[in-house]
Amino acid sequence: MGFPSASRCGAAWSRWAQLRGWQRRQRAWRSGSCGPGPEEPPGVPRGVCGVSAAQEVTLTGQRYGVRRAPFSPLSDTDVAFFERLMPGRAVTDPEELKPFNVDWLKSLRGCSKLMLKPQTTAEVSQVLRYCHERNLAVTPQGGNTGLVGGSIPVFDEIILSTALMNRIISFDKVSGILVCQAGCVLEKLSESLEQQGFVMPLDLGAKGSCHIGGNVATNAGGLRLLRYGSLRGTVLGMEVVLADGSALDCLTSLRKDNTGYDLKQLFIGSEGTLGVITAVSILCPQKPRAVNLAFLGCQSFDKVLETFTTCRAMLGEILSAYEFMDEKCMELVEKHLKLSSPVTGSPFYVLIETSGSNSTHDEEKLNSFLGQAMTSGLVTDGTVATDDKKIKTLWSLRERITEALTHDGCVYKYDISLPVGKLYELVTDMRARLGQSAKNVVGYGHLGDGNLHLNITAESYSHSLLAAIEPFVYQWTARHKGSISAEHGLGFKKKQFLEYSKPREAVVLMQRFKAMFDPKGILNPYKVLPSSS
Amino acid sequence: MGFPSASRCGAAWSRWAQLRGWQRRQRAWRSGSCGPGPEEPPGVPRGVCGVSAAQEVTLTGQRYGVRRAPFSPLSDTDVAFFERLMPGRAVTDPEELKPFNVDWLKSLRGCSKLMLKPQTTAEVSQVLRYCHERNLAVTPQGGNTGLVGGSIPVFDEIILSTALMNRIISFDKVSGILVCQAGCVLEKLSESLEQQGFVMPLDLGAKGSCHIGGNVATNAGGLRLLRYGSLRGTVLGMEVVLADGSALDCLTSLRKDNTGYDLKQLFIGSEGTLGVITAVSILCPQKPRAVNLAFLGCQSFDKVLETFTTCRAMLGEILSAYEFMDEKCMELVEKHLKLSSPVTGSPFYVLIETSGSNSTHDEEKLNSFLGQAMTSGLVTDGTVATDDKKIKTLWSLRERITEALTHDGCVYKYDISLPVGKLYELVTDMRARLGQSAKNVVGYGHLGDGNLHLNITAESYSHSLLAAIEPFVYQWTARHKGSISAEHGLGFKKKQFLEYSKPREAVVLMQRFKAMFDPKGILNPYKVLPSSS
Repeated sequence: MGFPSASRCGAAWSRWAQLRGWQRRQRAWRSGSCGPGPEEPPGVPRGVCGVSAAQEVTLTGQRYGVRRAPFSPLSDTDVAFFERLMPGRAVTDPEELKPFNVDWLKSLRGCSKLMLKPQTTAEVSQVLRYCHERNLAVTPQGGNTGLVGGSIPVFDEIILSTALMNRIISFDKVSGILVCQAGCVLEKLSESLEQQGFVMPLDLGAKGSCHIGGNVATNAGGLRLLRYGSLRGTVLGMEVVLADGSALDCLTSLRKDNTGYDLKQLFIGSEGTLGVITAVSILCPQKPRAVNLAFLGCQSFDKVLETFTTCRAMLGEILSAYEFMDEKCMELVEKHLKLSSPVTGSPFYVLIETSGSNSTHDEEKLNSFLGQAMTSGLVTDGTVATDDKKIKTLWSLRERITEALTHDGCVYKYDISLPVGKLYELVTDMRARLGQSAKNVVGYGHLGDGNLHLNITAESYSHSLLAAIEPFVYQWTARHKGSISAEHGLGFKKKQFLEYSKPREAVVLMQRFKAMFDPKGILNPYKVLPSSS
Repeated sequence: MGFPSASRCGAAWSRWAQLRGWQRRQRAWRSGSCGPGPEEPPGVPRGVCGVSAAQEVTLTGQRYGVRRAPFSPLSDTDVAFFERLMPGRAVTDPEELKPFNVDWLKSLRGCSKLMLKPQTTAEVSQVLRYCHERNLAVTPQGGNTGLVGGSIPVFDEIILSTALMNRIISFDKVSGILVCQAGCVLEKLSESLEQQGFVMPLDLGAKGSCHIGGNVATNAGGLRLLRYGSLRGTVLGMEVVLADGSALDCLTSLRKDNTGYDLKQLFIGSEGTLGVITAVSILCPQKPRAVNLAFLGCQSFDKVLETFTTCRAMLGEILSAYEFMDEKCMELVEKHLKLSSPVTGSPFYVLIETSGSNSTHDEEKLNSFLGQAMTSGLVTDGTVATDDKKIKTLWSLRERITEALTHDGCVYKYDISLPVGKLYELVTDMRARLGQSAKNVVGYGHLGDGNLHLNITAESYSHSLLAAIEPFVYQWTARHKGSISAEHGLGFKKKQFLEYSKPREAVVLMQRFKAMFDPKGILNPYKVLPSSS
């Protein structure tokens, strides 16, 4: 597919584009003046909250005034046991351990003295059986890309890394069902599947580092949820090791199975607190033959919403992403990452992706929608990409916002679900509330899923700023029946706020599940459930 | 859209059709010679296993040698309490109770003396609180359309009907999220949504009677799962009353919510044994603007499979159903229900539905696929329908197989998930095994989901025939890593076979959940979990 296309709709759209400066953008895009197009996943940020290196992060326990639970301290005998169990894969070197003790945002730090790298489920079983008997606490860790501190130790928990459990067990091209170990990196899986004409049902900015086991453990959402649904529907089977070391093999590869309670669902989104996921089977959709990306400017959030309704109706089954970001996001991406957007001068931007099986049909649908969106004034400027490289570059404008924010100072991050009409009101209310005390208040996210990423930056950490944000942000969300964590989970940072989104009775039931699965509480302690309730 | 269409692909397809007798069928179809097109959902069957009226069914407890658990017997004081609680909605008349004591297949019969019809969640709470205190057993019942005896009392359990909990609470046209009480009939919901441009994400033959609460409680699959995924992905929120009468309000209307463990998943598919679902919120897709149905004949099951792979690749995102049935199914539908198929003389038939947003595009894709399927000899005959009435009539050939089977004698029903390539092997193996001792052995189902409905009929019930079928069918399924219940659930009839599809450790965990949620075991006793393990 070219642009502008020769189709009737394409011509109409092209005309509108010309009238409104579209072609200028298009030319600029084609001549390569739109800045660098990094294709790497986001690297480790230079620092947030004024912290520039791992060793300078205050220990989490100290910073948050958390008391260590009475787990056994790690002894030399324990270390010797693990070294015998997995020679060369029991890491005790403090330097080597450093990055695994600190979260991606460099905002939390534990002091684990041991990281274990099992290769098999049997080894995970042996580790947990031993830890359970010895009352040693364990933090399962995948790619350590989480944003709420769920994957790092709070104190001296043993880090149980899935890094070496990275084997694809099987892939069936008829059913599209992938079975793999938990430590497979999402992007590696995507690459492997694409060669066989399929794609992973999820995609996210951290794809180059995150592990599929971590994705499932945190019920990761990401960029394709709008099209392919959540992991609750696409994860078909799971193998998990429980706190006492017993393995639960529910690794079926069936699209439908109604035999008894669906146990695997409890582990999806439990953030490693109920068991350690060692393998999963996932239903993967066919690779779309045609992918198009439109990056558009809108003059108000109401127009963003109306554009969504219009494109959902007109693009129908080929719509695969509808992301939005405000102009502040674009400023930060341009300033800190030196990316430049081919579309400028609008208060809001939307990124619309289509994925389909017929490029001509998809192009017609997209052109027809774009024509309508321009004619009716929903959209005032924009560009379209159809080839892989340009698509990646455009996506990076959206995907690298998180990274850009970490360069802007101390970041206060909120991941909120709201009725879609209310999505941006929280940003404007927060901006008004904080005034000059914040450096930037930005909003972006998965509009099609009702998911806002609200981020607030400041030059340095300030308790008074935090007090102005919280619990206001949670109260606001609860008042509008939203969720205080749409996709990031609760981890360590959000666990105290669970009751803003779940009734007391639900929290009590969760605590009973935790007690049932992990009576000694050794699995990822201090996470998910509020400590004082 | 007309047929044959004027498009290039359509012309090619039309030419092939002509060469192979397609147009003859098409003409026959148009002239209305394809038999009656009943639009009603299937009614109560005349009888199976030689039983012709409800009162003649042997009491389940007697027939299966089950012992009644030591629940309290219903006293006059209890009845008086319920009559005060819900005047006129506590049914004790034996005649009125009869149909609710017998399952849809008329194969099981309980002897409940009381049916309660609450209207509100508060009433359900009051009922369960009382029953819990008094140790009275309760069977929740929706439309009573289940096929494994999950919704009828085994002994004298109180029937808790959701029939009067049929209120739509809200529907949001922007997000497509429906919130409604559990007793809403699926078809009524569909009708209401269609007026607003949306559809329910599930559809099944029993839609005219089944309740959405029952659908969710049994994790119903049905005809649209291939396109819209399972209820595990589309059910967003739930309100449920636990065995002790406490209500758990997780009735959120958010597409994403990662705050703690996803409790509602445990109730999806638990068949009323862990709690009584009183309301749900469900994500509903937009109503497709164009629907096409192709009904095709294939000369072998291998061709059925190859046709599936081809159409999935060529129809891509617009494929919304791929059903198959063998010629025996068609014979029974024609013989017992006087429906006649516009396509005959093939050993296998497939029904392919497309749903999309652009009729021209969809027609082109379909015609292109049909041309390819004819050219390559995958398909030898067929017809296509685009208008609602003809689509319904064609669908009824598939949807009414269950009903036709009940007229063929005593039916032994199996609902099996298998790797798709193995799907029909079970039917041929079973046919060879049973020889003349069975009247008919038929296979049909949701091929796109790997879901086979294997049905065996005989003139009357025979223990020796049953012994020839079971446990062979379960062993065969387990050997091929299938599920012994793809979508029907376990209910009363399949619960003893759970361990063919789930490991012992999983069953033990399920029992612990049951004990945790319902320590007295009053909720839908004798169901789902094996009694002796």
